Amino acid sequence: MKEKIKLFILGSTGSIGTQTLNIVRRNCDKFCVVGLSAGNDYPLLAKQANEFGVNIVGIANQTHKKALQALLPNAKVFCGEEAQTVCADTDANIVVAAVSGIIGIHGVVAALKASKKIALANKEVLVSAGRILMKLAKDNHTEILPIDSEHSAIKECLSGHKFADVKRLILTASGGPFYFLTKEELEKVTPQRAIVHPNWNMGKKISVDSATMFNKGLELIEARWLYDTTNVEYIIHRESVIHSMVEFIDGSIVAQLSSPDMELPIQQSLTTQKLQREGTTNFVDLSPISFYPCQEDKFPAPKLAKQLIMKGDTILPCVYSSANEVAVQHFLNGKIGFCDIYRIVEKTVNQFKDNIKPSIDNVLNVDREIREKLSMES
Amino acid sequence: MKEKIKLFILGSTGSIGTQTLNIVRRNCDKFCVVGLSAGNDYPLLAKQANEFGVNIVGIANQTHKKALQALLPNAKVFCGEEAQTVCADTDANIVVAAVSGIIGIHGVVAALKASKKIALANKEVLVSAGRILMKLAKDNHTEILPIDSEHSAIKECLSGHKFADVKRLILTASGGPFYFLTKEELEKVTPQRAIVHPNWNMGKKISVDSATMFNKGLELIEARWLYDTTNVEYIIHRESVIHSMVEFIDGSIVAQLSSPDMELPIQQSLTTQKLQREGTTNFVDLSPISFYPCQEDKFPAPKLAKQLIMKGDTILPCVYSSANEVAVQHFLNGKIGFCDIYRIVEKTVNQFKDNIKPSIDNVLNVDREIREKLSMES
Repeated sequence: MKEKIKLFILGSTGSIGTQTLNIVRRNCDKFCVVGLSAGNDYPLLAKQANEFGVNIVGIANQTHKKALQALLPNAKVFCGEEAQTVCADTDANIVVAAVSGIIGIHGVVAALKASKKIALANKEVLVSAGRILMKLAKDNHTEILPIDSEHSAIKECLSGHKFADVKRLILTASGGPFYFLTKEELEKVTPQRAIVHPNWNMGKKISVDSATMFNKGLELIEARWLYDTTNVEYIIHRESVIHSMVEFIDGSIVAQLSSPDMELPIQQSLTTQKLQREGTTNFVDLSPISFYPCQEDKFPAPKLAKQLIMKGDTILPCVYSSANEVAVQHFLNGKIGFCDIYRIVEKTVNQFKDNIKPSIDNVLNVDREIREKLSMES
Repeated sequence: MKEKIKLFILGSTGSIGTQTLNIVRRNCDKFCVVGLSAGNDYPLLAKQANEFGVNIVGIANQTHKKALQALLPNAKVFCGEEAQTVCADTDANIVVAAVSGIIGIHGVVAALKASKKIALANKEVLVSAGRILMKLAKDNHTEILPIDSEHSAIKECLSGHKFADVKRLILTASGGPFYFLTKEELEKVTPQRAIVHPNWNMGKKISVDSATMFNKGLELIEARWLYDTTNVEYIIHRESVIHSMVEFIDGSIVAQLSSPDMELPIQQSLTTQKLQREGTTNFVDLSPISFYPCQEDKFPAPKLAKQLIMKGDTILPCVYSSANEVAVQHFLNGKIGFCDIYRIVEKTVNQFKDNIKPSIDNVLNVDREIREKLSMES
């Protein structure tokens, strides 16, 4: 009998976490769960731990420790940073890193140091510390596999090809719910409107990032590290049917398509084996597939990301990501307008003294510094 | 210095032949031509032989032998069947089989027996004698590589994947110039209208095949042999931007795209190395990409092909292909109407006693028999 792949899920109560557990539920002959960790939602966490027979659980928010322990009397409960880093001390083969925000870096670093594979849903971590994490993975003979429809698609499109034959990677972008709004209309967008994405069911932070297109900016920087190339571009593709494309030097373009559904990229990050899914694609239903120009005057976030990519290995992507994280929170709290998100990020990036060497400590320090600065300003 | 790949081009004066020579011209560091062969156009053949320094030439039509020899005093000139089979006696690495129609089988069989790779543009040959030719390739430790945007795309989409993971191959079909005509309007289509294809610049026979969708029927049967699967379908995709797709068991679909241009599949059949081409794809220009239903009531040729595929290894695909070849000729000569092409093929297939084992001789005999029968009837 083949041994099951053992998963530790960081962020198990979020959108990616629960979808990962759906896959485990459907493929319990292939996967098992050795650990679960969440931020606040301890009742759901306890329910998941019971269902999947998990005895190691983490809850970031210390105040829920007792309540969680009461629900799971036989489990070992970890809190704070340890709620993430405990994954390194288990026999997990893959750590699913689905904690949102830079705070997720602790679990990723600990897991890589313990030579565990990372299935990475957290964009901010790779954006802020790309080169360090890729090196950490290499030095520990393991790898970082993207849980992201775009990067997962790129991986599939590159399959069987030589990287030297690649002309460019082309990420597709839905353009978010406000692609057709005018600049004036964009200024008036409310949080309520911004957290509804037309094609994907996602968390709040990523929904706002999709609306501002910071999401694509972060993905461009991620792709830069995952595939070690600065030849990364994007195109607006409203229907989210083509998840990304690779253009080769001979003019051939390979694209990956599917119905919009995060379970495909999640399972592709968990195993190279293709897991059977029911149903057959109806292409007429997917038609037409359209491409639109990028409109960087209205949505400048990806353009700024590309500029940062061209600067090489600097701390600025961390600044970009952290400033955006704070600004999105301020927007969701009604403190700033929709277009202020970009303005704040751009200003923060431009004002930042770019002479700090990226390291895990520096990334965390810069992130803290930006949070403090922007909290005072708002 | 790496040795050049030596080509023998059968059908060098046709559309695929001349485009192959364009590629050689642009990549003369990688390819050279050791032999050229044509049916009738001896002036162009002589010009090509002079340009590429070729001393072995074939002209199928014996009546042009003297004239050709006069133009190429130092060349060895071969005629009739030998104009094709001579390729086997050269040091060619790849034989480009771009003779139209079943008559092209002589060169393909001779080349395979001499362990030469076949870059195959001729659909009729593989359709009529698929299993025999695939076996011949295998037994002689060589391979048949398709010169066809659809099959070349399938090959690229399968790259790096396990065939066991394939759910189905999906060939795209432009639907030809008459997709939106009514049944009544189809009856009145003239040869002049049928030989103009909206997306591709092609020969007459293949243009008519595209209009009737026999082209797709032939390609479905080809795919069946090239990729050893009966899970082959097609979808109407008017813009010919997606050249074909592979759907995998996990719901992921890999597609190959490019501007409609035969040089990409030709060069992909000549070398696994990707040859640099200028320019970058403008996706907005390619948009929108649409899929339409198959309309098998108006264009029943692919449906009949799929039925023949399900019957296994019979002589009927040969009947299908040969009857179509003759019917297209009758249509081009003004003897029959556009919709009569399918009627004749269907009747010929249905009336045929399906108990002849496919072999090269039987394929040639059946082809001859059908030609005689249909010539008398018309």
